[in-house]
Amino acid sequence: MRNHEESRTPVTVIGLGLMGQALAGAFLREGHPTTVWNRTAAKAGQFVAQGAKLAGSVAEAVAASPLVVVCVTDYDAVRKLLEPLGEVVDGRVLVNLTSGTSQEARQTAEWAERQGAAYLDGAIMAIPQAIGTAEALVLYSGPRSAFDLHEPALRSLGAGMMHLSSDHGLSSLYDAAGLTLMWSVLNGFLHGAALLGAAGVDASTFASFARQNIGTVADWLPGYAQQIDDREYPAPDATIGTHLAAMEHLIHESEALGINADLPRFFKALGDRAVAEGRGGDGYAALVELFRGASEVRA
Amino acid sequence: MRNHEESRTPVTVIGLGLMGQALAGAFLREGHPTTVWNRTAAKAGQFVAQGAKLAGSVAEAVAASPLVVVCVTDYDAVRKLLEPLGEVVDGRVLVNLTSGTSQEARQTAEWAERQGAAYLDGAIMAIPQAIGTAEALVLYSGPRSAFDLHEPALRSLGAGMMHLSSDHGLSSLYDAAGLTLMWSVLNGFLHGAALLGAAGVDASTFASFARQNIGTVADWLPGYAQQIDDREYPAPDATIGTHLAAMEHLIHESEALGINADLPRFFKALGDRAVAEGRGGDGYAALVELFRGASEVRA
Ligand SMILES: NC(=O)c1ccc[n+]([C@@H]2O[C@H](COP(=O)([O-])OP(=O)(O)OC[C@H]3O[C@@H](n4cnc5c(N)ncnc54)[C@H](OP(=O)(O)O)[C@@H]3O)[C@@H](O)[C@H]2O)c1
Ligand SMILES: NC(=O)c1ccc[n+]([C@@H]2O[C@H](COP(=O)([O-])OP(=O)(O)OC[C@H]3O[C@@H](n4cnc5c(N)ncnc54)[C@H](OP(=O)(O)O)[C@@H]3O)[C@@H](O)[C@H]2O)c1
Repeated sequence: MRNHEESRTPVTVIGLGLMGQALAGAFLREGHPTTVWNRTAAKAGQFVAQGAKLAGSVAEAVAASPLVVVCVTDYDAVRKLLEPLGEVVDGRVLVNLTSGTSQEARQTAEWAERQGAAYLDGAIMAIPQAIGTAEALVLYSGPRSAFDLHEPALRSLGAGMMHLSSDHGLSSLYDAAGLTLMWSVLNGFLHGAALLGAAGVDASTFASFARQNIGTVADWLPGYAQQIDDREYPAPDATIGTHLAAMEHLIHESEALGINADLPRFFKALGDRAVAEGRGGDGYAALVELFRGASEVRA
Repeated sequence: MRNHEESRTPVTVIGLGLMGQALAGAFLREGHPTTVWNRTAAKAGQFVAQGAKLAGSVAEAVAASPLVVVCVTDYDAVRKLLEPLGEVVDGRVLVNLTSGTSQEARQTAEWAERQGAAYLDGAIMAIPQAIGTAEALVLYSGPRSAFDLHEPALRSLGAGMMHLSSDHGLSSLYDAAGLTLMWSVLNGFLHGAALLGAAGVDASTFASFARQNIGTVADWLPGYAQQIDDREYPAPDATIGTHLAAMEHLIHESEALGINADLPRFFKALGDRAVAEGRGGDGYAALVELFRGASEVRA
């Protein structure tokens, strides 16, 4: 695609860690004139060999392109790199793909906009190997106009891209929500694999059952979501009280097999709190009220 | 289908709670000559009106049919009902659909087989409303021959039926594994809904993102399962150490929004333990070793 290079937006990539390298590689593959900068300059070598320019400073890197993508360890590193720059960011579109909290995203947006930059905060929900493929989901939030302007360039990073909202905090929040789902599913799978493993069932046999089971539960989510949005939690299926009895079975089962019962105990602690708050007759989605509230004070 | 009644296996249903009523209704709809018994006899009325016979005692109920289905609150109730019976169960196929642990299932199997009955332990992974439909998944374990003999009758309860193993404990264990997945997915969804809700995103908007996200994670399970079966946990994607950093983001995000951070703290406690055990460089599936082990002793 190098022959289209003249029509491609010049892009700067700041940060050439595992992810930054994947980003720079994807821009180069799609024929974008690419400038790179990394604290440890040696990591730029392979990209220079592919035609990238190596900037001598962060300021030079930012000045080189209308679209500047930053992907470093955390927002502390982002601040250290960008805050000394001053007006060189004026007029640029700054896309920060560093992971952080929604608060950090909003603070960085305020700083960038004070300097005259348009700021998009992004969350990469993919591993470096997936960047540039249809599997890579990258979420953006911030001004829609900046996203629209650079959508073709950003599409180089993966077909699964989405602009969520003008609220700069939202990509981080979706990322957080995706992570909490990911660890939840994985922990449930690992606990289930340990339970069945105790009876000699291998994890690969369990995996296909688990996928079917997870799909069934996922299909309930729109219904529960409606209850959450309505803040009404009827229980035509099973009440939290009924769930609690089954949670106790699960604790006993885990204990009897000598496997870790912390996960079902965590489930039951939530259920017990809901009952204590008078929600034993509600459906499971009523637990969102506990998740919305403060953490339990632990003894 | 009543015209086929003469060819249908006579069935007895013991227990007419919410679930037992659904079972009896499904057998009657499929034309099985049906005998019912319930501690509170009044619940049998509607079934007698549909042609069922009401037995005067548990022994009479068991004697009435070659296939006897029991579905009461718990195994304590099962024992109280069946153990006084003695030889009347001899030669019957006893199908126990009461929820319990694998140990209880195996103990009841031993008792039943000593009395000369063939015993199938089942787990109903469905709500009463789904019984008799394609959605109802009912898992059976115990002698395959008994299952094969009564498969047509048991199919009345739902198309999603499966014989798992001759090990009577397996249906309870699959049930337990399914439940741990269910609560895991639901809690992850509720925490995610609370996170996004704090920024004004409604749960219904989140639900479609969540389903996609859950589907992606579910697709990883066969790969992780292979690692678990091999007891080797390479990390081409992300190490437990990398996950831990993101878990800390998630705790901070939750705390900053004033929402419950117990779930991400639970994630992090697992990750910390794995690192303490020298698994920080392994992939996420290595946590199965923690799930296989004893619970954490809490301070
Ligand atoms: N890897 C993934 O699977 C993945 C997935 C989704 C999101 N992310 C996110 O992407 C971001 C980068 O991740 P990564 O995997 O590329 O991490 P990494 O391989 O550890 O690379 C970190 C990068 O940040 C730079 N850096 C750190 N502190 C700095 C500082 N004070 N000043 C200048 N540069 C600094 C490093 O420069 P040096 O080379 O000089 O050390 C390096 O370029 C993180 O926020 C991560 O959460 C990663
Ligand atoms: N409902 C569901 O969504 C669902 C889903 C999957 C599995 N299950 C399992 O199915 C089983 C039954 O659930 P259910 O929903 O039908 O419960 P339920 O509505 O509470 O009914 C309980 C049944 O057990 C009987 N019973 C309890 N203790 C007894 C005793 N000591 N002696 C004789 N009978 C006794 C009750 O008789 P009385 O009528 O005389 O009280 C009633 O028939 C449970 O193990 C449950 O976990 C239920």
